[in-house]
Amino acid sequence: MSSGPTVPKAAAARLSLYLRHLDHLLKAKQETVSSRQLGEALELSDAKVRKDLTYFGQFGHPGVGYRVAELRDALRAVMGTHRTWRVAMVGVGNLGRALLGYPGFSERGFQFVALFDTDPELVGSVIREMKIHHLDNLPQIAGELRLELAVLAVPADAADGVARRLVKAGIVGILNFAPVTVTLPKSVAEISVDLAMQLEQLAFRVTRPPG
Amino acid sequence: MSSGPTVPKAAAARLSLYLRHLDHLLKAKQETVSSRQLGEALELSDAKVRKDLTYFGQFGHPGVGYRVAELRDALRAVMGTHRTWRVAMVGVGNLGRALLGYPGFSERGFQFVALFDTDPELVGSVIREMKIHHLDNLPQIAGELRLELAVLAVPADAADGVARRLVKAGIVGILNFAPVTVTLPKSVAEISVDLAMQLEQLAFRVTRPPG
Repeated sequence: MSSGPTVPKAAAARLSLYLRHLDHLLKAKQETVSSRQLGEALELSDAKVRKDLTYFGQFGHPGVGYRVAELRDALRAVMGTHRTWRVAMVGVGNLGRALLGYPGFSERGFQFVALFDTDPELVGSVIREMKIHHLDNLPQIAGELRLELAVLAVPADAADGVARRLVKAGIVGILNFAPVTVTLPKSVAEISVDLAMQLEQLAFRVTRPPG
Repeated sequence: MSSGPTVPKAAAARLSLYLRHLDHLLKAKQETVSSRQLGEALELSDAKVRKDLTYFGQFGHPGVGYRVAELRDALRAVMGTHRTWRVAMVGVGNLGRALLGYPGFSERGFQFVALFDTDPELVGSVIREMKIHHLDNLPQIAGELRLELAVLAVPADAADGVARRLVKAGIVGILNFAPVTVTLPKSVAEISVDLAMQLEQLAFRVTRPPG
């Protein structure tokens, strides 16, 4: 599925920030934007912005800058968020339920289509019009519903084993909220969400205010 | 409270990654580490690593590299995570409860000492040996318990109003999980956690595998 040059991780992370800002500009009905304006909004140099965007194609128009809607659509296609992804929630405890209710996911094309847990008190019950399946039924349901991604919201000690079952069932990407590293084959993408790191960043900003 | 040069946001974000890796090296009983090794682990050039670390002090030893424990302690002091922070959880729905149970927070010095909500069914009940207070009691309790930071886990439409009440009560930093921008005075630090951005990054990795 790969095409084009390898993109540095940091540039890929900035793509999401560009997208957020372009969405914001579209809402404000701004039609074009310069690399300098994008840079100012994201606290980057305009040279950095131009370099980031050239990883993904030729988007600039001489004398115009970037057309906001065009750049937004192009970056969404690059990100893979121009389409809908079929996502499983694995672990339907407090965190899983909270994430199911998070409006940002469906807005950006991530559709939860199946729920899994192993707790007998949860399996069989219904949340958001979806039945909670036992994890043992994952292989069958993953095929039937063509599941692609999974959000892993299980306890730390269960994460590694569950991740392996997800991979066997054909899941190609895992968003891991368990505070533990899971071992996966290279063909499977994984993003670990380290929530404590966010609080650390906050402590840093309080300790050393910018400027 | 500020001291030393202004640190670029991206370098500050990398600090957490350095810390994670140094913690890992300490566990593995590795005593020294070179900028090249740090760079390899974090997918950065060794020049970038050296530049990042010089923002924060002179840590390298000629012919030795960095002493792992010394660098870890120094970076924790820079981050402000060498001490304990007194944190309020504001909003004790599914997300708030999930976050209270997240082990990474206390491990890194973030101690939840007060819970707030406005739901009459929740106020007065006890979670993790802490009573849930009504938000109206925030000013008094913030003073009594010397609250410093708050995790904001309230619905989007309530976030801005609640954030202002936190600021009035003397909170100096807010970790905002509400999918909405809150307006705060410059003296208050804020980090917004955009969970959908993490799923976007996952979609990107699946769409364009590295290498």
